[in-house]
Amino acid sequence: MFGPVEIVATSADKNFNYIPKNFTIPADADYFHITTNNTIFGTELRYDMDSPVPLVADMSSDILSRPTDVSKYALIYGGAQKNLGPAGVTFVILREDILGKVDRVIPTMLNYKTHIKEGSLYNTPPCFAIFTCLETLKWLKGLGGMPAMEKMNVAKAKLLYDTIDNSSMFTGTVEKDSRSLMNICFVMKEQYKAKEDAFMDFAKSKGMIGIKGHRSVGGFRASTYNALPIESVQALVDCMNEFEKTNA
Amino acid sequence: MFGPVEIVATSADKNFNYIPKNFTIPADADYFHITTNNTIFGTELRYDMDSPVPLVADMSSDILSRPTDVSKYALIYGGAQKNLGPAGVTFVILREDILGKVDRVIPTMLNYKTHIKEGSLYNTPPCFAIFTCLETLKWLKGLGGMPAMEKMNVAKAKLLYDTIDNSSMFTGTVEKDSRSLMNICFVMKEQYKAKEDAFMDFAKSKGMIGIKGHRSVGGFRASTYNALPIESVQALVDCMNEFEKTNA
Repeated sequence: MFGPVEIVATSADKNFNYIPKNFTIPADADYFHITTNNTIFGTELRYDMDSPVPLVADMSSDILSRPTDVSKYALIYGGAQKNLGPAGVTFVILREDILGKVDRVIPTMLNYKTHIKEGSLYNTPPCFAIFTCLETLKWLKGLGGMPAMEKMNVAKAKLLYDTIDNSSMFTGTVEKDSRSLMNICFVMKEQYKAKEDAFMDFAKSKGMIGIKGHRSVGGFRASTYNALPIESVQALVDCMNEFEKTNA
Repeated sequence: MFGPVEIVATSADKNFNYIPKNFTIPADADYFHITTNNTIFGTELRYDMDSPVPLVADMSSDILSRPTDVSKYALIYGGAQKNLGPAGVTFVILREDILGKVDRVIPTMLNYKTHIKEGSLYNTPPCFAIFTCLETLKWLKGLGGMPAMEKMNVAKAKLLYDTIDNSSMFTGTVEKDSRSLMNICFVMKEQYKAKEDAFMDFAKSKGMIGIKGHRSVGGFRASTYNALPIESVQALVDCMNEFEKTNA
């Protein structure tokens, strides 16, 4: 809508189940845009890449899940509602030198300069959502900050991925080096496909809902955002093991 | 930014202290835009006007303060944070036949059609803010709906405006037939101007803050939105009377 877009890499050939490697970012691009975590397909870019042009990242679904070198990004943005706070507020982290470089007229509310100039108070701020973000940030700091949070997220994801990998019934959908720590996608192996609904019902009987995978992947998806304790992952693992024991 | 604008009426000649009358809406305009309540200057359009072209109203600061004939409007919109709920959510009431009439490309999130098609769930909704709106709507309904709310708002405003009009020290800034029920602006009469700061301090000592008027009007501004009980207005009136008795 606002300019020509060049897709420098895609994993569409395998239903987006891996993070492409060995792509070249055009040196004449205005910026390079990435979404660091794909909530639908369960892939995640878990490092801060180098880019010959300004790097812009949508980190809606994995902000604050690991230490991030923000200096590598021209702009990081996202909705708060996964790891930072409740729905209804967004965050933007930017290098001020990237602003003011377009001639196009930008509507006042959509212009970052407006909000910087007014200290994020140009509009009436959503106080409840912002306050909840503050409390979340305090909680994260109290836990030990990003290094501690990453450790917890790695432990949670490892518990579930190990269960999947050691299962005779379940299998992961994403290539191992591209797996997300935030959204863990898995399906039943071919010979058990018909049991997917039965597992969903079984999980529901144990109090677990919302684990149905997105329709473009099928199977199951467990979201393991910062706020989810490892005990919840253990409950799902127990449920999977129990179902496998009686149905495999 | 998006097209030529014609201002059909203004009260700029008297620092916006009245609602213009006897203006003509051009029959060839795409739409006529009004803001029904002016929070800074304390004026309010308290009737649903006729318009030869689609009528668009920003009702951010007086939505739900009186019975409104929504059928007269092509579109009503606003932020919730005055009379409807907390900051962080907006409302839009529109006639669907006004949509799809422009050729200009509209960004997905800014296109009302997107949100209608998805039942207001295209994006992750700000649940807390929406839930609070629901509770507010239930409260309003329980009170007796818009006729009851209007009666309460009229009573609150009358109490304060009567005090202002009967005062030898204070005076209203807005012409009587244009006065807002939501934001009541008043100043000290010329001979008492020097006492405005003293009154602000006196009010503060009584627990009343935030009554300083906008810098473009000066003096004082009392906001009497739906949620404010008449007891709070009475407290301000008592404060004014007491100050006047000892300072006039």
